[in-house]
Amino acid sequence: MSGCQVDPNTIRPIRFFNGNCQMLDQRLLPAEEVWLDYSDHQGVAEAIRSMVVRGAPAIGVAAAIGAWFGARDIDCASSEEFFAEFEKVCALLAATRPTAVNLFWALERMKSFARANLDRSVLELKIGLEFEALAIIQEDEQLCKKLGRKGEPLLPDGARVLTHCNAGALATGGYGTALGVIRAAVAAGKKISVIADETRPFLQGSRLTAWELQKDNIPVTLICDNMAGYLMAKGEIDCVIVGADRIAANGDVANKIGTYTVAILAKEHNLPFYVAAPLSTIDLSLSDGSLIPIEERDAREITHLKGIQLAPEGIAVRNPAFDVTPNRLVTAIITERGVVQGNYLQQLAELAAD
Amino acid sequence: MSGCQVDPNTIRPIRFFNGNCQMLDQRLLPAEEVWLDYSDHQGVAEAIRSMVVRGAPAIGVAAAIGAWFGARDIDCASSEEFFAEFEKVCALLAATRPTAVNLFWALERMKSFARANLDRSVLELKIGLEFEALAIIQEDEQLCKKLGRKGEPLLPDGARVLTHCNAGALATGGYGTALGVIRAAVAAGKKISVIADETRPFLQGSRLTAWELQKDNIPVTLICDNMAGYLMAKGEIDCVIVGADRIAANGDVANKIGTYTVAILAKEHNLPFYVAAPLSTIDLSLSDGSLIPIEERDAREITHLKGIQLAPEGIAVRNPAFDVTPNRLVTAIITERGVVQGNYLQQLAELAAD
Repeated sequence: MSGCQVDPNTIRPIRFFNGNCQMLDQRLLPAEEVWLDYSDHQGVAEAIRSMVVRGAPAIGVAAAIGAWFGARDIDCASSEEFFAEFEKVCALLAATRPTAVNLFWALERMKSFARANLDRSVLELKIGLEFEALAIIQEDEQLCKKLGRKGEPLLPDGARVLTHCNAGALATGGYGTALGVIRAAVAAGKKISVIADETRPFLQGSRLTAWELQKDNIPVTLICDNMAGYLMAKGEIDCVIVGADRIAANGDVANKIGTYTVAILAKEHNLPFYVAAPLSTIDLSLSDGSLIPIEERDAREITHLKGIQLAPEGIAVRNPAFDVTPNRLVTAIITERGVVQGNYLQQLAELAAD
Repeated sequence: MSGCQVDPNTIRPIRFFNGNCQMLDQRLLPAEEVWLDYSDHQGVAEAIRSMVVRGAPAIGVAAAIGAWFGARDIDCASSEEFFAEFEKVCALLAATRPTAVNLFWALERMKSFARANLDRSVLELKIGLEFEALAIIQEDEQLCKKLGRKGEPLLPDGARVLTHCNAGALATGGYGTALGVIRAAVAAGKKISVIADETRPFLQGSRLTAWELQKDNIPVTLICDNMAGYLMAKGEIDCVIVGADRIAANGDVANKIGTYTVAILAKEHNLPFYVAAPLSTIDLSLSDGSLIPIEERDAREITHLKGIQLAPEGIAVRNPAFDVTPNRLVTAIITERGVVQGNYLQQLAELAAD
């Protein structure tokens, strides 16, 4: 389905119906809108690894679909045998990317469903897992909209909002987390303009955030990552809002590389720094952000762009894909159950227990 | 002379001998080493504007050569008439880029020479201006070496030094300012490793700094601009050294966009932030950095790379090419006459008056 148009009013990175899955190849945006077909869990794992699909909640959604593909293809008679095979499917999907916790959350939810229904037939388990995957997708978009409504009062009318990476419809089942808050503020009648960091090396800001906000007619200005400080110093940014890939129990936030720098800039210029993330992004098992594994990706993402050489051959490269912003730099965390400020350790635990 | 090799031990961006000028096309590095021929002042002006040559001191050198080309081509009998025409040549060269003060400094030096010798014949003026341009080139490399020796005691053995943009041999007559200090530290027997910000959008870090340090066998690791904070938080950077495009009388420093952010990061992590620049970069006529004009360049530098589209069509863009780092964030300014710390207003004036 190459060249297929996305409905601008309902940008979604993943389509799943009648057992068919298509993902918008986010590596090719904005120049091309190409939908790729997926029909097995190995293919979905590769789509996650190679960033056809990216963004913590969307990775969770993709993993749930991949898990169902794997479940569907298991050929055995007993539910116990099925479950042992299903765990292997989930392990393969879990080994794709280490930082975003939604991946593990979604796979755990799929496994929990199967585990709780081992008294059912293999056929029933397979059907049930398809419904569970569908539920994860639909819930994700709904909770983004809820999260948006909870967060939008934080954005004043006229706000010029800096965002980093893409925490939008393309990073979720639909609507977005950070961009969901912005969409909700616009829906509430506020005049909001967005400044989008281009977000090297994968350029989620220029390729994805700019693309989806332009489709929604929300004013957006693109800058390089190293320009945010300049605009803050000139008084041209009012607040920052970003998504998250994993939040520790104490409120430390792992998010796309460069987020920590933006948080320090916000503090230096006395600007609020907001994090928007569903509760599935919060990992209460980790006491602080130093325990969050940080993925280092291939050097070629930095040294080359679409085959063009940007750096000398053989150059050493560091390519951490994420960094950790300590809780002291986070003004508030916006979740679908409410906004948390101050004592994150206590409040995040309370929210999760609700 | 396409494909001509640069001597790795004497990397110089500009060749000028027997009245011929060639410039290494820095837009094509590191993939191609192409030397372009220049023979008139309009060509040199375009080379500066389009960033065939860049870096404040190198722009000054190029402008001096361009001014001589213009002088040589003036066809008139009287020195007064000649000087009036020469001022037009210099005005055209001055209108290329607004931020780097070395451009205006070099042109003013050429004009001063002519003004002081108006009693000479037009032929003598032309010959004298060629020698003046040659002097500017040779002095620039020499003063970089002097600056390097003054600054190298600031870099401890084993230091892991972050730099932004390219303040190297390619940005000067040769040897470099920030990279000159690093070269001098290496020459003094210290083990120094460099972390180079890629420096969007023009990628001076990945294309130029990585290239010239690799040629000199100085260990260099390339990162995206948004990764420096992560490495600082992990204790993997010991200090920062950058060049400058213009320094105000109070020590505020205009340099490549992103420098201000690096300076804030250095402060946040208690790391020294050094600026290396020749006295010709200091503009005592401006009381502080807010008066330094900041060039905004074409949106296409951000939205496209070598013709590849990175952002949606019609997207709004900001592309400031420089920012201003306030003096409070500058640990020391390294010049060819010594290192200045503390009261910049007084000390810079004293150094310049020496």
